[in-house]
Amino acid sequence: MKRRSNTAAAAFLLGATLVSAQTFHRLGGCPTLGCVFPPDQTDFLSGQLFDIRLEVHAPINGSEAHNAGVPDEKFTFCIQNGSKGECKNATQFFGVKEPALEKWTFSYYEDLFARDAKTPAVVNVASKAYRALSLTKPGDYVAKLKYNNVSQTVAHWTVRQPATTRKAKNVLFFIGDGMTQPMITAARLIAHKSINGRYQSLMQMDQMDNLGHQMTHSLDSFITDSANSATALYTGKKSSVNALNVYADSSKNSFDDPKVETIAELFRRRIGGPIGIVSTAYIADATPAALCAHTRDRNQYAAVVYEYLNSANGWNTSLPWPTSCEGPDVIFGGGAEQFIAGPGSPNGTDYYKAFADKGYNVIWNNTALQAVGTSKKTLGIFSVSNMAKWIDRHVLTDNLKGQKNSPNGDGTDALDQPGLKDMTLKAIDILQARATSGNGKGNNKGWFMMSEAASIDKMMHVLDYDRALGELLELDDTIRASIEHLKKIGEYENTLIVITADHGHGFDVFGGADTKYLAAQTDERKKRDAIGVYESSGLSGYTVAEGSLPTNDTIVFGSEGPNFPVQWNPRYAYAAGFGANPDHRESYTLNQNGPRVPATKGDDGTMHVNPTDHTDGFNVGGTLDGTQGQGVHSLQDVSVFANGPGSEAFRGVYNSIDIFFKIADALALGNAKN
Amino acid sequence: MKRRSNTAAAAFLLGATLVSAQTFHRLGGCPTLGCVFPPDQTDFLSGQLFDIRLEVHAPINGSEAHNAGVPDEKFTFCIQNGSKGECKNATQFFGVKEPALEKWTFSYYEDLFARDAKTPAVVNVASKAYRALSLTKPGDYVAKLKYNNVSQTVAHWTVRQPATTRKAKNVLFFIGDGMTQPMITAARLIAHKSINGRYQSLMQMDQMDNLGHQMTHSLDSFITDSANSATALYTGKKSSVNALNVYADSSKNSFDDPKVETIAELFRRRIGGPIGIVSTAYIADATPAALCAHTRDRNQYAAVVYEYLNSANGWNTSLPWPTSCEGPDVIFGGGAEQFIAGPGSPNGTDYYKAFADKGYNVIWNNTALQAVGTSKKTLGIFSVSNMAKWIDRHVLTDNLKGQKNSPNGDGTDALDQPGLKDMTLKAIDILQARATSGNGKGNNKGWFMMSEAASIDKMMHVLDYDRALGELLELDDTIRASIEHLKKIGEYENTLIVITADHGHGFDVFGGADTKYLAAQTDERKKRDAIGVYESSGLSGYTVAEGSLPTNDTIVFGSEGPNFPVQWNPRYAYAAGFGANPDHRESYTLNQNGPRVPATKGDDGTMHVNPTDHTDGFNVGGTLDGTQGQGVHSLQDVSVFANGPGSEAFRGVYNSIDIFFKIADALALGNAKN
Repeated sequence: MKRRSNTAAAAFLLGATLVSAQTFHRLGGCPTLGCVFPPDQTDFLSGQLFDIRLEVHAPINGSEAHNAGVPDEKFTFCIQNGSKGECKNATQFFGVKEPALEKWTFSYYEDLFARDAKTPAVVNVASKAYRALSLTKPGDYVAKLKYNNVSQTVAHWTVRQPATTRKAKNVLFFIGDGMTQPMITAARLIAHKSINGRYQSLMQMDQMDNLGHQMTHSLDSFITDSANSATALYTGKKSSVNALNVYADSSKNSFDDPKVETIAELFRRRIGGPIGIVSTAYIADATPAALCAHTRDRNQYAAVVYEYLNSANGWNTSLPWPTSCEGPDVIFGGGAEQFIAGPGSPNGTDYYKAFADKGYNVIWNNTALQAVGTSKKTLGIFSVSNMAKWIDRHVLTDNLKGQKNSPNGDGTDALDQPGLKDMTLKAIDILQARATSGNGKGNNKGWFMMSEAASIDKMMHVLDYDRALGELLELDDTIRASIEHLKKIGEYENTLIVITADHGHGFDVFGGADTKYLAAQTDERKKRDAIGVYESSGLSGYTVAEGSLPTNDTIVFGSEGPNFPVQWNPRYAYAAGFGANPDHRESYTLNQNGPRVPATKGDDGTMHVNPTDHTDGFNVGGTLDGTQGQGVHSLQDVSVFANGPGSEAFRGVYNSIDIFFKIADALALGNAKN
Repeated sequence: MKRRSNTAAAAFLLGATLVSAQTFHRLGGCPTLGCVFPPDQTDFLSGQLFDIRLEVHAPINGSEAHNAGVPDEKFTFCIQNGSKGECKNATQFFGVKEPALEKWTFSYYEDLFARDAKTPAVVNVASKAYRALSLTKPGDYVAKLKYNNVSQTVAHWTVRQPATTRKAKNVLFFIGDGMTQPMITAARLIAHKSINGRYQSLMQMDQMDNLGHQMTHSLDSFITDSANSATALYTGKKSSVNALNVYADSSKNSFDDPKVETIAELFRRRIGGPIGIVSTAYIADATPAALCAHTRDRNQYAAVVYEYLNSANGWNTSLPWPTSCEGPDVIFGGGAEQFIAGPGSPNGTDYYKAFADKGYNVIWNNTALQAVGTSKKTLGIFSVSNMAKWIDRHVLTDNLKGQKNSPNGDGTDALDQPGLKDMTLKAIDILQARATSGNGKGNNKGWFMMSEAASIDKMMHVLDYDRALGELLELDDTIRASIEHLKKIGEYENTLIVITADHGHGFDVFGGADTKYLAAQTDERKKRDAIGVYESSGLSGYTVAEGSLPTNDTIVFGSEGPNFPVQWNPRYAYAAGFGANPDHRESYTLNQNGPRVPATKGDDGTMHVNPTDHTDGFNVGGTLDGTQGQGVHSLQDVSVFANGPGSEAFRGVYNSIDIFFKIADALALGNAKN
C-alpha cells in the first residue's frame, strides 16, 4: 500500500493559512491551484477508458487569492511512463489533438463562518479536457501539470498487471445498500433461532466461502454517498459525493466531467455478453445508475434512463465517449416516473415506448414477470418511486393500498409487486437464455448482473429498523435462492457471487425494550426504564410465538419460512440506535402504517420530531444539523462475502476500488487479448 | 449448524402464560422448571473438565407457581452416549458417588411491572452438583433430568473430534476489549494518511493473513459483558453476564456454580508450558481474570487474585476442582488495590508478598519492567485501578499527576507506567525464557499469552472516543511490534497470533465537526450546524499538521511514529456517536483533563449531563435508563484477525465459542495422547 510520494508540489503554498484544508474544499482531489483528473494515486485496468480534465484555479479573493483572479492559460501537461522516461506532452503521448481551452468561474465558502457571512470565495478557472483515452501497458505513470511558471501538480497513476486467465463465466454482484455487519448481526438475531447461545440456522451470508472488509471512504470526504461509492465499486476509482462514474470538476455542466469506464461497459465491450440491473429502488437511483451512467449529478434521473438505452454522454451528446451499456438485457426495479411521459422522463416522452421500440419486453407486475419469456431484453418497472418494502408486501399488506403508484401511471395501486428474489431469479433466466442464444449475441461467454437491496439503506435513513432488516433478510433469502437456482441450471460452478455494501449507517442493537412497559409509562424519563441492557436485554422475541418458551420444542416458522421472524412486533423488542440521527421519538415498536417518517419540518423551517411518529415513545434529541430529517451514512468498513471462481481474492481487508479490480480479474477484463 | 431438537420437554408448561419468557429470566439457560448445566447445545473439548449442576424449581407464586412451592427432590439424572445407547445414571456413567441434595430459595421479578409493584416471584430449589468430570470420547451425548414425574429436561452435548496434530507452539492472543470494526475504521482514519482515497499505510490488523467474524451473544441474553464473553472465548462455553468460567446457578453462593476448564488451565495441565496475562485494566478485571478464575460474580476481585496464585475454587476451598493456572508466569497490569494489604486484597493481606513468597519477581514501574530478568515468574502491577491511557501517557502527560495511584500504595503518582507494547514484549521474553529453561519446566513446548487492550472498552463506555481510539492504536502498534519481536527471536513461524474483541459498542463516525464553529455558537441548535455530513465530512484532520495541505509533501509524523495521529485535537474533528448513550453533551473536542465523565448523578438520584463536561457543546438526550451513566455494550459481530500456524481456521463467520476450539486445536489440547 505504500505509494510514491509527491515531493514536487508548489512550495510557496505551504506557508499559506488554509482554514478550509480539511472541509469545504475548493475542489475535491485538488488541494493546490492546479488540478489533474484522474488525480494522484489512481489505478487503471489495462485498456480501461477514461477522460482527463485539467484545471488551473485563480481565486479572486479568500485565503488563496492569486494573481488578481487571472488563471494561467498557458499551463502544460505531460505524461511519463515509468519513473525515468521522458515526460511527453499529452497530445504526443496519446496521439490526440490539443483540446480547446475552456474557462469558467465558480464560488465556494471557505468555512461555515464565511457561509454565515455570505462571503464566498470566487475562483476563475482555465481548463482543458482530453477525452476517451486509455493506458494498456501495465506499470507506473507520472502525469504532470505545470502552471503559474513555478508550480506543478503531479499525479501518479498505475496500470495494474491484469489477470490473463479468466476464472468466472458469470458474475452475480449483490449490493445491500447501506448494509453493515451490525445490521447482519441484528437480522440474524430476529430471524434465526438460537438455543443457549447457539444458532440453529444461519444467514446465507454467514455461510459464504470467503469473507473480506472494504473501506468505503470517498476521494475528498471520509463519508460517501451511494453514487460515489458505486463508482468506486464499478470503476475502481474513488470520486466525490453525487458523482456517477466521473471525477467532479468545478464547472457547472453536470455532463462534461471526466468519465471513467464501468465494469458493465467493459463487459459489453470486451466480452459482449448480456448484462442485468436489478434494484428495489427507482431504477434511476445511484446504485443501479452507476453501472451505465456518467454524470456529476446523480439527480439527473431522466438522463440516467436515457444513458441506459443510448450513449453514456447524457445531455452532452457531442462528447466522444465510445462505450455504453448498449441497453442492458435486464432492467428491473421501480421508478416509473422516468418512463411515464411527463416531467420525469427523457424529453418528456413515453420511455416505455422508447425501450419497446428497441425490442424490449416491457412488464409492470409480478404476474407478468413470472410469465414473460426469456429470449428478449426485458424492462420491468413495478412501481412509481421505490418499490414496496418486504414487510409491507408480506406482513402489513394493507400498506400497499392507497399509494397510487402503479407503474403504468393510471393512479391505481401497485399491489402486485415482485420482491428482490422474484426479480433476481427471473433476471438470471433471461441473462442465461440470452447468453446462450442468438438474441443476446449468443457467445455463451457468460453474463454480468448487479442486484441491489436498495431499501436497507432507505429504511435505515428513516430509522425504520424493522423494515431495513426485512429488506436485509430478503437479500439474504435472494442470495440463498440464487445459489440454489444456479445449481439447478448448472451455472453455480461458473458464477462468481459477490455480496457487499456501498457504505454503512451507524446502526447497532444495544439492548431490549419491554414495549408494553414503555407504552404504559407517562413520564418521558420513566419510559427509558423499559430499556434492558446486558443480562436484561433478554433473548430474541422475534423467533418464538408470543408466550412460548425458548426451547427446541417451540420451533415454529412464520409464513415466509425459516429465514424470517416468526413475529415482527413482539413485546420484548430489540432496542437499537444510530451514531447520528435527527430529532425523533422511540418506542421500539413496528411502524404499522408503512415506512417511518421520524422528523418533519417545524415552524422554524428545520427538522423536528414528527408529531405523529411513535407517539407513545420518548424523545431523542438529534445530533445533526436542522436540515437533516433522516439519519446519515457512516464510516465503518463493510463486509464482503464471495463464493465461486475467483472468490478467494475477496478475503482480507482492502479498499472499495479493489472490488472492481477483483471482479475484472476474475473475468480477465483487463487482458488486452480478451 | 443444524442441531438436534428437543422434542421431549414438559408438555404441561406449553400453555402457560409466560410474560417473562424473553427477559427477566427465572434462570438463564433454564426455560422449564428443570435445569441442567452444562445446558442443551454444549460442546466440549475432549477431556475438558466440567461440573454438572441440576436444579428443580418450584415457584411459590407468579405465573409458573408449582406444587405449592415444593420442589421434587427425587429427580433423576442419566447420560447416554450417542442417540441409541442406554441412558445410564450419572453416578454409574462417571463412576462417582451420588452428590448430596442441596436446597435453597431465590426470588426474581417476572417483569418490570412486578418490579415496580415489588411483587417478586419466589422459587424453592432442590439441587445436586457433580464435580470435576470430563468426557473424552468424541461424539454426541444426551443428558436427561427427569423430575415432577412427567417432566424431563434434555441437554444435547457434543465432544468435538479433536485435532491430533499440533500446529502452533506458542499462542499470542490479543483482545481489544469492546473493539469493533467501526472503531478500527475510525482509528485508521485518524492515524494513517490517505491521499485521494488511498491509504499510504495501513493498520497492522488490516494486514493480517486471515479475517473472521465472531458472534458475541450470551447464553441467556443477546448482549454480553466481558466476563461472560471471555468465558466463551477461553472455555468454548456460552454463559451469563458476570460469570467467570461457571454456569450461573440460582444459589446465592458465588463460588458453588458449575465450573468449566479454561484454555489456560488446559495448557498448564496438558502441555505444562508457561502462561502469561497482560492487561491495561486492573488485573482482577473480567478479561484477564477469566483465564484462571471461576466465580459467578466477576466483582470478587480478591478471590480472582487468590485464584491466580492458588486453587481455582476461590473462597469455596472444599470443592475438588483439580486444575488451575498454577500461578501464571507473567501477570502484568493495574489493580494494586488487590495486592496492597487492605480491604481489596485477599484476606486483607499483603499480596505482593504472597506472590514474592512463591518465587515471583514483583515490579511496579516501566523502569523495573525493562530491567527485570526473564528467568523468574514476574508480577508487574503498575498502578492502582486501571492503567493510564495512551493519550495521557504520550500527549497529555500532566494528567498522570495528582492520581495518587502508585502501585506501592504510598499515595504518590504512578508516573512511570509501561504501555501495552512494553508489557507484551517483556512478557514474550519471560515466557520464551521460561519455556526453554528449567525454571518454567523447560520443556520448550511453547507458551500461551493473553494480552488485552482493556481501555478501548473503558473509554468507549465513557464516550471518550479519542482515548478509546488511542488505546486501539496502541494495540495495533503492539501487534506490529510483537510480530517484529517474534521474528527477531525466531518464534514468529511457531506462533499463532489471534486478535479479536469480546463484544462491541455501537460506535461509528458519521461526519466531521468544525469544532471552532461549534464552540463559537451560543444557540444549542445552531451548534449542530457545525456537523458536516457526506461531502462536508471532509478529510481527516488528524494526519496533517494544522494548516497544511493534504498532499504527499506534507507527510509528517507525530512523536510516536507513523501509526499514530499527527495531532489529536484538530479544528476539523470526526463526529461520532453511539446507538445508545446516557444524557451528555457533545463538542467533539479532545478531553484535555483526562478520561471523560459524560454524566453525573442529579438531584433525582439518576444520571444526567455532567455539568462540567464539554461545556461548550450541545446536549444529547440519552436513550438508556437513569441508572446508566455510561454507554453500554452492543450486539454486532466482532472481527477476528489471525496469523501463523493454525490461523486459516479463523476465516469466515462463527460463534465466539469456536475461538476456544480453534486455539485448542492449533495446540492439539484435545488430543488425549498429548
